[in-house]
Amino acid sequence: MGDSRPVLAVDIGGTKLAAGLVEPAGRVLTWAQTPTPRELDAEQLWRTLAALIDRVIDAADVGRADLQGVGCGCGGPMEWPAGLVSPLNIPGWRGFPLRSRLAELFPGMPVRVHNDAICLVAGEHWRGAGRGRDNVLGMVVSTGVGGGLILDGRLIEGASGNAGHIGHVVVDPDTGPRCACGGVGCLEAIARGPALVTWAQQQGWRPDQPDATARELADDGALGHPIGLAAMRRAGRALGIAVASATSLCDLEVVSVGGGLSQAGPLLFDPLEEALRAHARLEFERQVTVVPAALGQSAGLVGAAAMLFAADRYWAGD
Amino acid sequence: MGDSRPVLAVDIGGTKLAAGLVEPAGRVLTWAQTPTPRELDAEQLWRTLAALIDRVIDAADVGRADLQGVGCGCGGPMEWPAGLVSPLNIPGWRGFPLRSRLAELFPGMPVRVHNDAICLVAGEHWRGAGRGRDNVLGMVVSTGVGGGLILDGRLIEGASGNAGHIGHVVVDPDTGPRCACGGVGCLEAIARGPALVTWAQQQGWRPDQPDATARELADDGALGHPIGLAAMRRAGRALGIAVASATSLCDLEVVSVGGGLSQAGPLLFDPLEEALRAHARLEFERQVTVVPAALGQSAGLVGAAAMLFAADRYWAGD
Repeated sequence: MGDSRPVLAVDIGGTKLAAGLVEPAGRVLTWAQTPTPRELDAEQLWRTLAALIDRVIDAADVGRADLQGVGCGCGGPMEWPAGLVSPLNIPGWRGFPLRSRLAELFPGMPVRVHNDAICLVAGEHWRGAGRGRDNVLGMVVSTGVGGGLILDGRLIEGASGNAGHIGHVVVDPDTGPRCACGGVGCLEAIARGPALVTWAQQQGWRPDQPDATARELADDGALGHPIGLAAMRRAGRALGIAVASATSLCDLEVVSVGGGLSQAGPLLFDPLEEALRAHARLEFERQVTVVPAALGQSAGLVGAAAMLFAADRYWAGD
Repeated sequence: MGDSRPVLAVDIGGTKLAAGLVEPAGRVLTWAQTPTPRELDAEQLWRTLAALIDRVIDAADVGRADLQGVGCGCGGPMEWPAGLVSPLNIPGWRGFPLRSRLAELFPGMPVRVHNDAICLVAGEHWRGAGRGRDNVLGMVVSTGVGGGLILDGRLIEGASGNAGHIGHVVVDPDTGPRCACGGVGCLEAIARGPALVTWAQQQGWRPDQPDATARELADDGALGHPIGLAAMRRAGRALGIAVASATSLCDLEVVSVGGGLSQAGPLLFDPLEEALRAHARLEFERQVTVVPAALGQSAGLVGAAAMLFAADRYWAGD
């Protein structure tokens, strides 16, 4: 008999903080979330998170000793596996010792912290769209474009825990837009939501609405607006080229695509497929399939728990 | 005390067949090579290889029982790990059961066959330019552009043993040349030797010499010929973009570049560095270093032996 105790899973993003209890089979038993507070200092943010964790544990009516451990996904960058986090979208935390603070809350218990995109792919591989496959790229297409890599059945870390960072694969080095990283023609510079909105506004879509969102752009595309359609084609084509390059380099079986923009459905996935099939022509490359991420909002929590439940595959840290 | 017996290493390419004995520390004790015969049938080719192997073993004055095993690199594609080989440049072998034929020659002994580019990166990682690093891309830039990937300290296979195939990473999807694979703008379509020669001839270099080679083009570049220089810049830039994408996706520490074209030295490596640094801008990407492959002609033999001597890192097959 395996250990049937649940894991406390935590998912920290720029928009929301979430926590839940996940059972060994990967089901989320109970969970809660709260908007990520703005303009709080490091300790105030921490107290907000600690209160959310208390709430989840109290609601589930389990004692802390009934937990197997704590897994946490957090926006990057971070020092991994030390768990000093500096999430781009949470300015209050710069070098915040998230892992050791969580360990203080749960003495004697394994506590593991990793990049939120890594947790998403771990979740999709463990219990979602990549289940049973050994070579999977999990992508998150949203405000940024990130991802994580499973190769030969194991989560790949790379030199600094950043493997899977597909957002900076180059898809248009000659005429592409400048990227926030300083490069030119990165996938993220084209396909991230805000970049699509900027591009669409330059084409004449809602030019006077500074708060227009990629979701509205996709919705307009779904209603047949030509600029909305063209924007989704532009993102889909860039994604397809990057996925072709990743497939060639890593001999992938499955690419799962999640994040807000993936909800545009065929408007995005059709041009993605078209560009992928135009560029991934070798016999082995043609075997790859691209699928929407299957776990939705819970992928981050499920993947955070996988770092404990299936550590041989998803946790290479100390 | 470890097992001090040598491994018989074999390296099968379209130009030459090589065999040697490699000791556990990675030194090649004795070796021999012969040009790959043209226009022979499968069995004649096999007899040529078997005679070469006999010659090496006889010259070394060891008995077959004094060997630890047999490692063999062979041009792809192949069915891996079964070792049925169909080398593009050796038309006489199509689905040839190389691994089982070698096993018949050395009964009761482990025999392992892998792609020659995979053996090169294994050799460079085990005893060459990637030694001591956990995240290494080994590239071969020659008649084709191939490679192999070491991530988190282990050779990556991917879904079909083709991981590391950087030649088909897309570097110029809009205006790049069509590739033999059917795609557009693949690295290989630009940077393989024959493609550079074709491009240079279109620019006016030796237009009437159908047998002109990339080596001659590089040599002319070294003498200051503007088309030769431009061709090396063209290849270097394409390589730099592909290396930037690979670094972003795989969080690499070291990229080793071997193969005939790498002997062009700074003519190739300077524009490679320039393009890489223009595109690899994130903190973690900037850590990558690009180095010439260190083992030269013996890398294939050393890597073939590594599949036996360091099987935990370089052999995931049966």
